[in-house]
Amino acid sequence: MSDTIVHAIQDKYAEDYSWCYGCGRLNENGLHLRTGWVGEKTVTVYTPRPEHTAIPGFVYGGLIGSIVDCHGTGSAALALHRKNGYEPSDDKEPPRFVTASLKVDFIKPTPHEVPLKAVGTIEEIHPKKWKIHTEVFANDVCCAKGEVVAAVMPDTFAQK
Amino acid sequence: MSDTIVHAIQDKYAEDYSWCYGCGRLNENGLHLRTGWVGEKTVTVYTPRPEHTAIPGFVYGGLIGSIVDCHGTGSAALALHRKNGYEPSDDKEPPRFVTASLKVDFIKPTPHEVPLKAVGTIEEIHPKKWKIHTEVFANDVCCAKGEVVAAVMPDTFAQK
Repeated sequence: MSDTIVHAIQDKYAEDYSWCYGCGRLNENGLHLRTGWVGEKTVTVYTPRPEHTAIPGFVYGGLIGSIVDCHGTGSAALALHRKNGYEPSDDKEPPRFVTASLKVDFIKPTPHEVPLKAVGTIEEIHPKKWKIHTEVFANDVCCAKGEVVAAVMPDTFAQK
Repeated sequence: MSDTIVHAIQDKYAEDYSWCYGCGRLNENGLHLRTGWVGEKTVTVYTPRPEHTAIPGFVYGGLIGSIVDCHGTGSAALALHRKNGYEPSDDKEPPRFVTASLKVDFIKPTPHEVPLKAVGTIEEIHPKKWKIHTEVFANDVCCAKGEVVAAVMPDTFAQK
Protein backbone atom coordinates (compact mmCIF):
# COMPACT_ATOMS: atom_id res chain seq x y z
CA MET A 1 0.00 0.00 0.00
CA SER A 2 1.39 3.37 -1.02
CA ASP A 3 2.87 5.59 1.68
CA THR A 4 2.41 8.76 -0.33
CA ILE A 5 -0.83 10.70 -0.09
CA VAL A 6 -1.01 12.78 -3.26
CA HIS A 7 -4.47 14.27 -2.77
CA ALA A 8 -5.28 14.86 0.88
CA ILE A 9 -8.67 16.05 2.01
CA GLN A 10 -7.00 18.53 4.39
CA ASP A 11 -5.47 20.31 1.38
CA LYS A 12 -9.00 21.37 0.43
CA TYR A 13 -10.52 22.34 3.79
CA ALA A 14 -11.72 25.93 3.87
CA GLU A 15 -9.08 28.25 5.30
CA ASP A 16 -11.12 28.90 8.44
CA TYR A 17 -11.05 25.16 9.14
CA SER A 18 -7.37 24.62 8.43
CA TRP A 19 -5.88 25.57 11.79
CA CYS A 20 -6.10 22.23 13.56
CA TYR A 21 -2.90 21.35 15.41
CA GLY A 22 -3.23 17.81 14.15
CA CYS A 23 -4.21 18.30 10.52
CA GLY A 24 -4.46 21.98 9.64
CA ARG A 25 -2.21 22.96 6.76
CA LEU A 26 -2.09 26.56 8.07
CA ASN A 27 -1.03 25.64 11.62
CA GLU A 28 2.71 26.31 11.44
CA ASN A 29 3.56 24.33 14.56
CA GLY A 30 1.14 21.47 13.97
CA LEU A 31 1.55 17.91 12.79
CA HIS A 32 0.18 18.49 9.26
CA LEU A 33 -1.53 15.11 9.11
CA ARG A 34 -2.81 14.39 5.60
CA THR A 35 -5.46 11.81 4.75
CA GLY A 36 -6.32 10.38 1.37
CA TRP A 37 -7.93 7.45 -0.38
CA VAL A 38 -6.08 4.26 -1.20
CA GLY A 39 -8.82 2.29 -2.93
CA GLU A 40 -11.70 2.00 -0.49
CA LYS A 41 -9.46 2.57 2.53
CA THR A 42 -8.26 5.88 3.92
CA VAL A 43 -4.62 6.37 4.82
CA THR A 44 -2.66 8.85 6.91
CA VAL A 45 1.11 8.53 7.22
CA TYR A 46 3.11 10.39 9.88
CA THR A 47 6.64 10.09 11.17
CA PRO A 48 6.77 11.12 14.84
CA ARG A 49 9.15 13.87 15.90
CA PRO A 50 12.13 13.00 18.11
CA GLU A 51 10.33 14.40 21.15
CA HIS A 52 7.21 12.25 20.67
CA THR A 53 8.46 9.57 23.04
CA ALA A 54 6.64 7.62 25.74
CA ILE A 55 9.87 6.16 27.01
CA PRO A 56 12.91 6.26 24.75
CA GLY A 57 12.34 4.07 21.71
CA PHE A 58 8.55 4.16 21.80
CA VAL A 59 5.87 6.61 20.71
CA TYR A 60 3.66 8.22 23.35
CA GLY A 61 0.00 7.30 23.30
CA GLY A 62 -1.33 10.81 22.98
CA LEU A 63 0.23 11.13 19.53
CA ILE A 64 -1.41 7.92 18.41
CA GLY A 65 -4.69 9.28 19.74
CA SER A 66 -4.16 12.48 17.76
CA ILE A 67 -3.44 10.54 14.58
CA VAL A 68 -6.53 8.36 15.03
CA ASP A 69 -8.61 11.46 15.76
CA CYS A 70 -7.62 13.59 12.74
CA HIS A 71 -7.45 10.52 10.51
CA GLY A 72 -11.03 9.87 11.60
CA THR A 73 -12.41 13.32 10.79
CA GLY A 74 -10.43 13.39 7.55
CA SER A 75 -11.72 9.95 6.56
CA ALA A 76 -15.31 10.98 7.26
CA ALA A 77 -14.82 14.10 5.13
CA LEU A 78 -13.38 11.98 2.32
CA ALA A 79 -16.35 9.61 2.52
CA LEU A 80 -19.09 12.23 2.52
CA HIS A 81 -17.27 14.18 -0.19
CA ARG A 82 -17.16 11.04 -2.36
CA LYS A 83 -20.81 10.33 -1.60
CA ASN A 84 -21.54 13.86 -2.83
CA GLY A 85 -19.69 13.08 -6.05
CA TYR A 86 -16.30 14.59 -5.35
CA GLU A 87 -12.72 13.50 -4.86
CA PRO A 88 -10.04 15.48 -3.00
CA SER A 89 -8.40 16.15 -6.36
CA ASP A 90 -11.46 18.18 -7.36
CA ASP A 91 -11.57 21.92 -6.83
CA LYS A 92 -14.45 21.72 -4.39
CA GLU A 93 -14.54 22.47 -0.67
CA PRO A 94 -15.21 19.29 1.29
CA PRO A 95 -17.42 18.97 4.37
CA ARG A 96 -15.68 19.41 7.72
CA PHE A 97 -16.22 16.99 10.58
CA VAL A 98 -15.66 17.12 14.31
CA THR A 99 -14.95 14.21 16.61
CA ALA A 100 -17.82 13.00 18.77
CA SER A 101 -15.85 10.16 20.35
CA LEU A 102 -12.40 8.66 20.15
CA LYS A 103 -11.28 5.22 21.27
CA VAL A 104 -7.84 3.68 21.03
CA ASP A 105 -6.73 0.20 22.07
CA PHE A 106 -2.98 0.03 22.39
CA ILE A 107 -2.07 -3.42 21.12
CA LYS A 108 1.69 -3.27 21.51
CA PRO A 109 4.39 -0.66 22.15
CA THR A 110 4.78 1.51 19.04
CA PRO A 111 8.39 1.89 17.91
CA HIS A 112 9.73 5.40 17.45
CA GLU A 113 11.64 6.79 14.46
CA VAL A 114 9.63 4.95 11.81
CA PRO A 115 6.63 6.20 9.82
CA LEU A 116 3.25 5.33 11.31
CA LYS A 117 0.49 4.43 8.90
CA ALA A 118 -3.16 4.75 9.90
CA VAL A 119 -5.50 2.74 7.68
CA GLY A 120 -9.20 3.47 7.98
CA THR A 121 -12.37 1.57 7.15
CA ILE A 122 -15.43 3.76 6.95
CA GLU A 123 -18.95 3.03 8.07
CA GLU A 124 -21.88 5.41 7.56
CA ILE A 125 -24.08 5.32 10.66
CA HIS A 126 -26.19 8.40 9.86
CA PRO A 127 -26.15 10.89 6.96
CA LYS A 128 -24.19 13.31 9.15
CA LYS A 129 -22.34 10.82 11.35
CA TRP A 130 -19.69 8.32 10.33
CA LYS A 131 -17.66 5.73 12.19
CA ILE A 132 -14.06 5.12 11.21
CA HIS A 133 -12.27 1.93 12.24
CA THR A 134 -8.54 2.53 12.14
CA GLU A 135 -5.48 0.36 12.46
CA VAL A 136 -2.13 2.03 13.10
CA PHE A 137 0.89 0.23 11.71
CA ALA A 138 4.60 0.64 12.37
CA ASN A 139 6.88 -1.48 10.20
CA ASP A 140 3.75 -3.26 8.94
CA VAL A 141 2.87 -4.38 12.47
CA CYS A 142 -0.46 -3.23 13.89
CA CYS A 143 0.34 -1.44 17.15
CA ALA A 144 -3.00 0.22 17.87
CA LYS A 145 -6.64 0.01 16.85
CA GLY A 146 -8.88 3.01 16.95
CA GLU A 147 -12.48 3.99 16.48
CA VAL A 148 -13.79 7.48 15.87
CA VAL A 149 -17.33 8.70 15.53
CA ALA A 150 -17.20 11.88 13.48
CA ALA A 151 -20.10 14.27 12.95
CA VAL A 152 -20.54 17.04 10.41
CA MET A 153 -19.36 20.21 12.12
CA PRO A 154 -22.42 22.07 13.39
CA ASP A 155 -22.75 25.69 12.29
CA THR A 156 -22.68 26.75 15.93
CA PHE A 157 -19.16 25.34 16.38
CA ALA A 158 -17.49 28.35 14.80
CA GLN A 159 -19.44 30.83 16.92
CA LYS A 160 -17.67 31.48 20.18
CA MET B 1 -10.98 22.66 43.93
CA SER B 2 -7.35 23.75 43.89
CA ASP B 3 -5.70 24.37 40.52
CA THR B 4 -2.20 23.93 41.89
CA ILE B 5 -0.61 20.50 42.00
CA VAL B 6 2.12 20.72 44.61
CA HIS B 7 3.19 17.08 44.65
CA ALA B 8 2.86 15.46 41.23
CA ILE B 9 3.50 11.78 40.70
CA GLN B 10 5.48 12.60 37.55
CA ASP B 11 8.02 14.48 39.68
CA LYS B 12 9.00 11.12 41.18
CA TYR B 13 9.04 8.83 38.15
CA ALA B 14 12.41 7.19 37.59
CA GLU B 15 14.54 9.17 35.13
CA ASP B 16 14.28 6.45 32.48
CA TYR B 17 10.48 6.84 32.59
CA SER B 18 10.41 10.64 32.51
CA TRP B 19 10.66 11.26 28.78
CA CYS B 20 7.00 11.09 27.85
CA TYR B 21 5.97 13.92 25.53
CA GLY B 22 2.80 14.30 27.54
CA CYS B 23 4.02 14.06 31.12
CA GLY B 24 7.79 13.54 31.24
CA ARG B 25 9.58 16.18 33.25
CA LEU B 26 12.78 15.57 31.23
CA ASN B 27 11.16 16.00 27.79
CA GLU B 28 12.12 19.58 26.96
CA ASN B 29 9.53 19.99 24.21
CA GLY B 30 6.73 18.12 25.95
CA LEU B 31 3.58 19.22 27.71
CA HIS B 32 4.85 18.54 31.25
CA LEU B 33 1.49 17.35 32.52
CA ARG B 34 1.50 16.92 36.29
CA THR B 35 -1.00 14.87 38.25
CA GLY B 36 -1.69 14.93 41.96
CA TRP B 37 -4.23 14.09 44.60
CA VAL B 38 -7.00 16.45 45.63
CA GLY B 39 -8.70 14.41 48.32
CA GLU B 40 -9.78 11.14 46.71
CA LYS B 41 -9.76 12.61 43.21
CA THR B 42 -6.78 13.07 40.93
CA VAL B 43 -6.23 16.35 39.13
CA THR B 44 -4.16 17.50 36.16
CA VAL B 45 -4.25 21.13 35.06
CA TYR B 46 -2.92 22.28 31.71
CA THR B 47 -3.23 25.48 29.72
CA PRO B 48 -3.07 24.71 25.97
CA ARG B 49 -0.48 26.44 23.84
CA PRO B 50 -1.60 29.00 21.23
CA GLU B 51 -1.10 26.43 18.46
CA HIS B 52 -3.31 23.78 20.11
CA THR B 53 -6.35 24.84 18.11
CA ALA B 54 -9.01 22.75 16.37
CA ILE B 55 -10.48 25.79 14.73
CA PRO B 56 -9.61 29.21 16.16
CA GLY B 57 -11.09 29.57 19.64
CA PHE B 58 -11.30 25.86 20.41
CA VAL B 59 -8.87 23.18 21.55
CA TYR B 60 -8.09 20.27 19.21
CA GLY B 61 -9.27 16.87 20.30
CA GLY B 62 -5.88 15.18 20.20
CA LEU B 63 -4.65 17.37 23.03
CA ILE B 64 -7.64 16.43 25.16
CA GLY B 65 -6.88 12.81 24.36
CA SER B 66 -3.28 13.33 25.46
CA ILE B 67 -4.36 14.93 28.71
CA VAL B 68 -6.82 12.13 29.46
CA ASP B 69 -4.13 9.56 28.59
CA CYS B 70 -1.29 10.88 30.78
CA HIS B 71 -3.74 11.89 33.51
CA GLY B 72 -4.89 8.27 33.44
CA THR B 73 -1.47 6.68 33.80
CA GLY B 74 -0.51 9.27 36.42
CA SER B 75 -3.71 8.65 38.36
CA ALA B 76 -3.14 4.90 38.32
CA ALA B 77 0.41 5.42 39.58
CA LEU B 78 -0.88 7.67 42.36
CA ALA B 79 -3.45 5.05 43.34
CA LEU B 80 -1.13 2.07 43.45
CA HIS B 81 1.54 4.16 45.19
CA ARG B 82 -1.00 5.10 47.87
CA LYS B 83 -2.14 1.49 48.16
CA ASN B 84 1.50 0.60 48.76
CA GLY B 85 1.64 3.17 51.55
CA TYR B 86 3.20 6.12 49.78
CA GLU B 87 2.30 9.63 48.71
CA PRO B 88 3.99 11.57 45.91
CA SER B 89 5.55 13.78 48.57
CA ASP B 90 7.51 10.76 49.81
CA ASP B 91 11.01 10.09 48.56
CA LYS B 92 10.03 6.81 46.95
CA GLU B 93 9.90 5.85 43.29
CA PRO B 94 6.30 5.19 42.23
CA PRO B 95 5.10 2.46 39.89
CA ARG B 96 4.90 3.39 36.20
CA PHE B 97 1.83 2.56 34.14
CA VAL B 98 1.16 2.32 30.42
CA THR B 99 -2.16 2.89 28.68
CA ALA B 100 -4.04 -0.20 27.54
CA SER B 101 -7.01 1.75 26.19
CA LEU B 102 -8.16 5.33 25.88
CA LYS B 103 -11.66 6.61 25.29
CA VAL B 104 -12.85 10.18 25.03
CA ASP B 105 -16.37 11.48 24.51
CA PHE B 106 -16.33 15.08 23.37
CA ILE B 107 -19.32 16.66 25.08
CA LYS B 108 -18.97 20.20 23.81
CA PRO B 109 -16.38 22.36 22.04
CA THR B 110 -13.53 23.12 24.45
CA PRO B 111 -12.62 26.81 24.60
CA HIS B 112 -9.01 27.75 24.00
CA GLU B 113 -6.82 30.05 26.11
CA VAL B 114 -8.14 28.89 29.48
CA PRO B 115 -6.69 26.23 31.82
CA LEU B 116 -8.15 22.76 31.35
CA LYS B 117 -8.68 20.69 34.48
CA ALA B 118 -8.88 16.91 34.31
CA VAL B 119 -10.49 15.35 37.37
CA GLY B 120 -10.15 11.62 37.78
CA THR B 121 -12.03 8.96 39.71
CA ILE B 122 -10.09 5.75 40.15
CA GLU B 123 -11.32 2.20 40.06
CA GLU B 124 -9.12 -0.83 40.72
CA ILE B 125 -10.10 -3.60 38.31
CA HIS B 126 -7.08 -5.86 38.91
CA PRO B 127 -3.99 -5.52 41.14
CA LYS B 128 -1.99 -4.40 38.10
CA LYS B 129 -4.77 -2.75 36.11
CA TRP B 130 -6.77 0.34 36.98
CA LYS B 131 -9.56 2.24 35.29
CA ILE B 132 -9.65 6.02 35.50
CA HIS B 133 -12.83 7.94 34.78
CA THR B 134 -11.96 11.50 33.88
CA GLU B 135 -13.90 14.67 33.32
CA VAL B 136 -12.18 17.58 31.60
CA PHE B 137 -13.37 21.02 32.59
CA ALA B 138 -12.85 24.45 31.02
CA ASN B 139 -14.21 27.37 32.99
CA ASP B 140 -15.89 24.82 35.28
CA VAL B 141 -17.86 23.37 32.36
CA CYS B 142 -17.33 19.70 31.55
CA CYS B 143 -16.28 19.57 27.88
CA ALA B 144 -15.10 15.96 27.63
CA LYS B 145 -15.36 12.68 29.50
CA GLY B 146 -12.62 10.11 29.29
CA GLU B 147 -11.84 6.59 30.37
CA VAL B 148 -8.42 5.02 30.53
CA VAL B 149 -7.42 1.49 31.41
CA ALA B 150 -3.85 1.66 32.66
CA ALA B 151 -1.63 -1.34 33.34
CA VAL B 152 1.60 -1.61 35.27
CA MET B 153 4.39 -1.20 32.71
CA PRO B 154 5.65 -4.65 31.81
CA ASP B 155 9.39 -5.24 32.19
CA THR B 156 9.57 -6.02 28.49
CA PHE B 157 8.37 -2.54 27.54
CA ALA B 158 11.77 -0.97 28.05
CA GLN B 159 13.54 -3.62 25.98
CA LYS B 160 13.59 -2.65 22.32
